[in-house]
Amino acid sequence: VPMPWWPDTKWKQMVSGEICEMCSDAHLATNPYSDLIGSSLSSYTRLSRNQSQPGYSIVIFRRHVSDLSELEPAERASFVEDVVAVSKAISSLFVPVKIDLLMMGHLCPHLHCHVFPQYQEDDPHAPVDLNRQERSLTHAAQQQRLESMRSLIRFT
Amino acid sequence: VPMPWWPDTKWKQMVSGEICEMCSDAHLATNPYSDLIGSSLSSYTRLSRNQSQPGYSIVIFRRHVSDLSELEPAERASFVEDVVAVSKAISSLFVPVKIDLLMMGHLCPHLHCHVFPQYQEDDPHAPVDLNRQERSLTHAAQQQRLESMRSLIRFT
Repeated sequence: VPMPWWPDTKWKQMVSGEICEMCSDAHLATNPYSDLIGSSLSSYTRLSRNQSQPGYSIVIFRRHVSDLSELEPAERASFVEDVVAVSKAISSLFVPVKIDLLMMGHLCPHLHCHVFPQYQEDDPHAPVDLNRQERSLTHAAQQQRLESMRSLIRFT
Repeated sequence: VPMPWWPDTKWKQMVSGEICEMCSDAHLATNPYSDLIGSSLSSYTRLSRNQSQPGYSIVIFRRHVSDLSELEPAERASFVEDVVAVSKAISSLFVPVKIDLLMMGHLCPHLHCHVFPQYQEDDPHAPVDLNRQERSLTHAAQQQRLESMRSLIRFT
């Protein structure tokens, strides 16, 4: 019986970084999923192209590790501080009711955190689904949102 | 038009901790949702009663804050270290393919992190749903799992 998770050989290559989309595109100004807001010593912060949840961003650890537990405490702390800085920027720009911090990596096991805000129109009882809705901004509006985020985050 | 999120007055009480189920039951040996594994200076670690994902645990910050961003960096780091210790214990006991770290709090905005393992039989493309399946262990099996977790986590 085939198991639904990735085949073992492929998953091992994904976990080791031998195959890793984020290693290839996390630093690019733009890629099919997101645009670069900025980078720190430990991470790249990107604004999702899907702005159904205004401010939805992803903080991607700079080098390839598959899990937060692989880091030394100091590296972990600086990654988490980056996540929090992004969360604070989203809070002050968009005033969500709550912000979810989600580290999963089922499709790309390269350490990253989805900073995923919730708004009044969201159902607090619904399971979180990053792709429940799809909403792209115009190029100009996306660029303006990138600028607003940059103005609020001090990258270390 | 009523919005799906909690009514504003109620949500404010939940965020402030005036109404907070976790403040009442996070420290108890047992409550309807989970059993206490142990506690550290910053958190309570609990084993979910729903063990559909073997090892599924929740790390709950000791005092009431609604969000990780409200903490000082040192407090944040020690909470995160607790989460990682739990994640490592789950890894060595149950050998999941991946472990999700999920901080949400839509139903109870008291800072906590779901340490939610994924296994070969899980679909990596499915959105994460903490309640997708429901599986309780016998009392004896749950107690044994609590003991196994305790033996692997050094609470600081």
